[in-house]
Amino acid sequence: MTDSTRTAHSTRHSTTRRNVLRGTVATAALAATTTAPAGPAHAAPPAGGGPEIGILLYDGFSLLDPTGPAEVLSRLPGATVTMIAERRGAVRTDTGDVAVVAERSLDEVDRLDVLLVPGAGNRGTVAAMNNRTLLDWIRRIHRHTRWTTSVCTGSIVLAAAGLLDGRQATTYWAAAEYLEATFDVTCLPRRHVRSGKIITAAGVSAGIDMALYLASLLAGADTAKAVQLAIEYVPQPPFDAGDASRADARLKERALRLLEESQGQGQGPRSHPGVRLG
Amino acid sequence: MTDSTRTAHSTRHSTTRRNVLRGTVATAALAATTTAPAGPAHAAPPAGGGPEIGILLYDGFSLLDPTGPAEVLSRLPGATVTMIAERRGAVRTDTGDVAVVAERSLDEVDRLDVLLVPGAGNRGTVAAMNNRTLLDWIRRIHRHTRWTTSVCTGSIVLAAAGLLDGRQATTYWAAAEYLEATFDVTCLPRRHVRSGKIITAAGVSAGIDMALYLASLLAGADTAKAVQLAIEYVPQPPFDAGDASRADARLKERALRLLEESQGQGQGPRSHPGVRLG
Repeated sequence: MTDSTRTAHSTRHSTTRRNVLRGTVATAALAATTTAPAGPAHAAPPAGGGPEIGILLYDGFSLLDPTGPAEVLSRLPGATVTMIAERRGAVRTDTGDVAVVAERSLDEVDRLDVLLVPGAGNRGTVAAMNNRTLLDWIRRIHRHTRWTTSVCTGSIVLAAAGLLDGRQATTYWAAAEYLEATFDVTCLPRRHVRSGKIITAAGVSAGIDMALYLASLLAGADTAKAVQLAIEYVPQPPFDAGDASRADARLKERALRLLEESQGQGQGPRSHPGVRLG
Repeated sequence: MTDSTRTAHSTRHSTTRRNVLRGTVATAALAATTTAPAGPAHAAPPAGGGPEIGILLYDGFSLLDPTGPAEVLSRLPGATVTMIAERRGAVRTDTGDVAVVAERSLDEVDRLDVLLVPGAGNRGTVAAMNNRTLLDWIRRIHRHTRWTTSVCTGSIVLAAAGLLDGRQATTYWAAAEYLEATFDVTCLPRRHVRSGKIITAAGVSAGIDMALYLASLLAGADTAKAVQLAIEYVPQPPFDAGDASRADARLKERALRLLEESQGQGQGPRSHPGVRLG
C-alpha cells in the first residue's frame, strides 16, 4: 500500500463517532424500551436487574470453557458475569498461553443465580478435585443457585464436591469412563444434561450450546435466539471430526496427544514469560 | 448431601496424581514421538518449534473473538499464542464483565507467523479504526506474517489499516454494509474468506471455524481434525437462529438491542468494579 492510499483511508474514517453496526440506527427508538427488558421477571434481581452469573476460574482451566458461555450469558438483559477464583487476579490456562482476570475472590461471593465450573487439563482438574476450599465454596454457593452448571471436566469437580451423587451428567468424552468409575454418576453422551437444577455440558465447545440452552431457561427462548444471532452462531466446522463416538482410535490418540503436548508436559514453560498479576 | 457421603468422596479421590483423561494411559508410548510433531516443517520455527501466533487485544473487544481461536490454535504442535495490546496488562471486553491479560505490548512484538485481530462493539471498533499506533503496528506486522486474520468487526480494523484494499472479505453480519460502503472491499456472506494471506471470519463464533481452517493450513488437515476432536467441536445449537440471512427483522433488531444494552450504553458501568492491573 502506498502512503497516498493510506492517507485517503485515514480521511474516510476519521470521524470518531460513527455507527459501524447497522442496529445503531434504531438506538433512539429502542431507548424507551431499555428499562423494560424482555423475559420473565427474576425473583431477586441484582444491580443489573438480571441474573448474577459467576464463573469459577482455577489454575489450568481450558480457555473456551468459561469464555464461550461468558460471551453468551453476558448478553442477557441486565445480566452480570463475574470471573471468580481463590484469589483476585490473573488465572492462567492449561497451555500457559493466556490468563483471564478473576474479579472476585471466593470469600467475596456468597450468592449467585448461576454458577459455572469450567473444565481443565489433567493437572488442573485433579488439583481442583483435591482443593477443599474450592469444593466447600462450590457446595455453599450451590445451595442457593437457580442453576449450577459445568463445562467439560468441570462436571468432575462438581462430582468431587458431591453434587452429582445419583445423578445423570455429561463430561468431556475422554473423561466419561473416569467420571462413572469414580463417582455415583450416570454419564450420558449428550451435548448437555440437565438433572434438577444442575446442567453439565460435554467438552470445551459444548459450553456454548449449553449456555444458549441456559439462556433460554433464564430469559426465554426468544431472547436466547437473539443471543445466538448476536454471536452469529451458525457453526460450519471445516471438518466433521468433533464427535468422539464416530472418531477412530488413531484420531482420538492424536487429539489427546495434542492436548498433552500443548499443556507442556515434559516441555517446561511456554516460550513467553508469565506475567504475574494480582 | 450428608457429611458422611462427603467424606466418602474425599477418600475416593484423595490421590493427588491421577489420570482423569483416558489418553494419559498412552503417555509413555507417545513420549518418544513428542520431539517429532506431525505436519509440515516451519520455515522459521520459534522457541516452541511451531507457529508464533499473536492476538491483538484492544479495549472493548468481544470475548469469544480472540478466545475461541486461541483455544484452537494453542493446541497446534509447538505453537505459542500471545495476547498483545498497546500496553501489557488487563484489557476489558465490550460488556465490561471480563478482562484478558495482554502478555506483550505492541513495541515488544516485531514478527509473528500469524496475526489475529478480533472484533469489538461499536465503541471499541471505532476507537481501533482511529488508533494510528494500532494501525501502524498491524501494517508493520502484516509485512512478514504467514497469515493475517480477523474475526467479526476485526476485518474493519484491517480495512482501516489499508490491508483489504480491492479484496474480498467477510465481517459481522450487521457490519457488512458499513465495510463495503466505507472501504474498497467486496463483502461475502461466508463463514470465512481467504484472500491471499489474509483470512477474515464472520461474527464472533465464526472465529472457531476460521481457526480450524487456519490450523489445517498451518499443520495439515489431520492435525486440524484432531484439534476439533480435542475441543469436542460437534456443535448442536439448541436453536436455529444464528444465520442473519434467514433471520427476520424482529430477531435482528432484538439481537442488536441485546448487544447495545449489554455494552452498557446509557447504563453506566457494570455492577462489579474494574480490577486495575499491569
